[in-house]
Amino acid sequence: MSSEGIHITFTELIQKKRDGKQLSKEEINFFIKSIKNKNMQECQIGAMLMAVWLKGMTDEETLALTQEMMMSGEVFQWPAEWKKFVVDKHSTGGVGDKVSLLLAPALAACGCKVPMISGRGLAHTGGSLDKLESVPGFNINQSSEQVKKILQDVGCCIIGQTEDLVPADMVLYAVRNATATIDSLPLITGSIISKKAAESLSALVIDVKYGKAAFYKDISSARELAQSLVTAGSKLGIRTGAVLSKMNNPIGHCIGNSLEVIEAIEYLKGRGSADLRELVESLGGYLLWLCGMANTIDCGKELIVNTLKNGQALDKFQAMLEAQGVEQNTARFLCKGEPDYFTVFRRAQHHAELKTEKEGTILEINGLTLAEVMCELGAGRTKVGEVINHSVGAELLVSVGQHVKKGDSWVRVHYDIPALKEDQIARLQAALTIGSSTGFDDSPLVTELILPK
Amino acid sequence: MSSEGIHITFTELIQKKRDGKQLSKEEINFFIKSIKNKNMQECQIGAMLMAVWLKGMTDEETLALTQEMMMSGEVFQWPAEWKKFVVDKHSTGGVGDKVSLLLAPALAACGCKVPMISGRGLAHTGGSLDKLESVPGFNINQSSEQVKKILQDVGCCIIGQTEDLVPADMVLYAVRNATATIDSLPLITGSIISKKAAESLSALVIDVKYGKAAFYKDISSARELAQSLVTAGSKLGIRTGAVLSKMNNPIGHCIGNSLEVIEAIEYLKGRGSADLRELVESLGGYLLWLCGMANTIDCGKELIVNTLKNGQALDKFQAMLEAQGVEQNTARFLCKGEPDYFTVFRRAQHHAELKTEKEGTILEINGLTLAEVMCELGAGRTKVGEVINHSVGAELLVSVGQHVKKGDSWVRVHYDIPALKEDQIARLQAALTIGSSTGFDDSPLVTELILPK
Repeated sequence: MSSEGIHITFTELIQKKRDGKQLSKEEINFFIKSIKNKNMQECQIGAMLMAVWLKGMTDEETLALTQEMMMSGEVFQWPAEWKKFVVDKHSTGGVGDKVSLLLAPALAACGCKVPMISGRGLAHTGGSLDKLESVPGFNINQSSEQVKKILQDVGCCIIGQTEDLVPADMVLYAVRNATATIDSLPLITGSIISKKAAESLSALVIDVKYGKAAFYKDISSARELAQSLVTAGSKLGIRTGAVLSKMNNPIGHCIGNSLEVIEAIEYLKGRGSADLRELVESLGGYLLWLCGMANTIDCGKELIVNTLKNGQALDKFQAMLEAQGVEQNTARFLCKGEPDYFTVFRRAQHHAELKTEKEGTILEINGLTLAEVMCELGAGRTKVGEVINHSVGAELLVSVGQHVKKGDSWVRVHYDIPALKEDQIARLQAALTIGSSTGFDDSPLVTELILPK
Repeated sequence: MSSEGIHITFTELIQKKRDGKQLSKEEINFFIKSIKNKNMQECQIGAMLMAVWLKGMTDEETLALTQEMMMSGEVFQWPAEWKKFVVDKHSTGGVGDKVSLLLAPALAACGCKVPMISGRGLAHTGGSLDKLESVPGFNINQSSEQVKKILQDVGCCIIGQTEDLVPADMVLYAVRNATATIDSLPLITGSIISKKAAESLSALVIDVKYGKAAFYKDISSARELAQSLVTAGSKLGIRTGAVLSKMNNPIGHCIGNSLEVIEAIEYLKGRGSADLRELVESLGGYLLWLCGMANTIDCGKELIVNTLKNGQALDKFQAMLEAQGVEQNTARFLCKGEPDYFTVFRRAQHHAELKTEKEGTILEINGLTLAEVMCELGAGRTKVGEVINHSVGAELLVSVGQHVKKGDSWVRVHYDIPALKEDQIARLQAALTIGSSTGFDDSPLVTELILPK
């Protein structure tokens, strides 16, 4: 029950945290090592995580936890010449957030290397892996050797977490999920930053969302998390920054896996919505400034905008699809010209357009409600491991601030059940707020930048 | 993940307690049932127990927990004519505490039925089961049918917990032991009272010890536990009382399993030490008053004293030994006349008498230190399941308050290792405090009676 240089039992370790005391670096090493080696009983992991949830961790403990988690598995090694340009972006989860699909190729087009390890959707939030898997042939499982080759050839990839990368996180995440200890600042920090640190990043930008459709409803808890993430990332040698961004209305016009990929491609072809553009440019600009490729955030934004204008980001996206298993013909078909996307993506059996119930200005579209209904229709999962339907989704036909007449179509729902239920229609209708022309929020989504203290 | 009439997941249940909310009777039923049916993951039990440890439980929750634990297994059924006389005593654990071995037969001699379910020693505290197992042939495992027959024929038995009795406690205890959640008021209350309630008792007295050699060092935490136990027991229909008793010096003159059985038999033959007599009479008198067999506690004490004087308690002890598997010849040999006990009990290979280092009055004998050294020598166990040596122990040759000269023998140690270690001798010597004749505590051990509020 003890490790080299440490003479404490698991029970004593749990007791120490239970009593609100600070664990030493050696003790946290012992904890993570014992999880990885399966020496610690499941009940002990559960009790420890509850003690951490209730008693918290200091910055030193959080840093040690993150570092030990990172060291529990493989740590990517990159060629020396990539040293300053290996970057990534992380988001705490939103509705209609397809920023990663755009930012990875845009950054690659700027000369960055982007080994983006992404996740799957859960509850109302989507995940990049699910979205990309709606493209026939796309393979999210890539070995570290394959990742290195794709970064060499293309510059970006979007992949799932491998078993070798931060194995301690897999155990901890499963226990957190079962024991109501997900939303603990040190545990979230450890989980996110350990994986980013195992990617051996030079720079990292994190989009911490707050609002009605975000995990964090208020800005102050979002700010607290952002600061914790930025502090841990920076202490591990990654130039880390975060933005706080509003998450109320859906981002862009589409929710649902294949619909979001189509929207991403349309964006790369120059037809992006303003909110999506703002996020891509803000996050990209910030990241290019953090890694030293741009002298100001605005210069960084300009570099990103250029890759979109000159088609290089689209080329990188196409190359990434091919590198990750999509047939060349398919990738080319999607990315060149004006294709009928539904010859590649399966179209849902049914579509229904809902009509506005009065005239006025669109003040708000409740992203959470839309996402919840789409999740019920099969676009998302309520439990880890559930199969989802890539074709299900919602296309918004209006934008916040737009004037509508009564009876205008405002959303097109793609679904595979025989008919939408009455209450689903009612909830969708209630998600739309129409009112006088002055009551909507057209201020920028990104409201704050968080830098290391 | 849900039980009849309850729609909550395990994670939500844990979250509710994590957030300090009160669980309903139905939710606690769901929790205990899911433990018994092995539906709840170990990590979830660990997290829940840590949340209970840190957030506590109300009296209502503690009562529901106790009741549901009781109902998780077999509940003893007794003949209607025993209704008022089924009684038991519980102690929170002491050093040299052989009260159960004396009280069970004394109560049986008074006409009570005593289905005493006892435990094993752990750390510095002894357990009645270990002590009795030093008698060749004594069998602590008795079915409920056998228990009923022994109570019919003899009136008392001292047995181990069966697998059918409160199975939820076995799971919970193992997890508590691993997760630093042993010393939680509601969890202790649930564990103790559920087992007593499953015995279908009429009355119960609990000896909550406090002091240097007790689990509770201060009287206020002992009082808090006593009140919790008494409240839960009473609410479950058991006439329950508790005493707070000092636990500093060892109780009686012997520590160690076979030595304590010998001391118990000597006591039953009329040669008990004053402190042991006080506890047996106080607890017995209180219990007889609680169950209505005595009109006052003092009358109850008198009844107990009489069974000792007239030899009936000794007869019951002998009959209990025989009923639980000891050969008739052996039981009779031990209980009649003045036998050489060591023809029945194995004698340890070595004995050492330690000498007083100065003249004066014995002010204190540190029971914790003595018990710790005896535990090291094999008389006790540090982990559940460890084998112990019944022959190892210490006989005190002096009492607190006695005047000694320098060089008098004060303790005889029975051991099986080749020689006592220097530091063990030094620690034993340091356990003895000799000083001026006025500094010792000769006030009663029992300092408070706790009744239902």
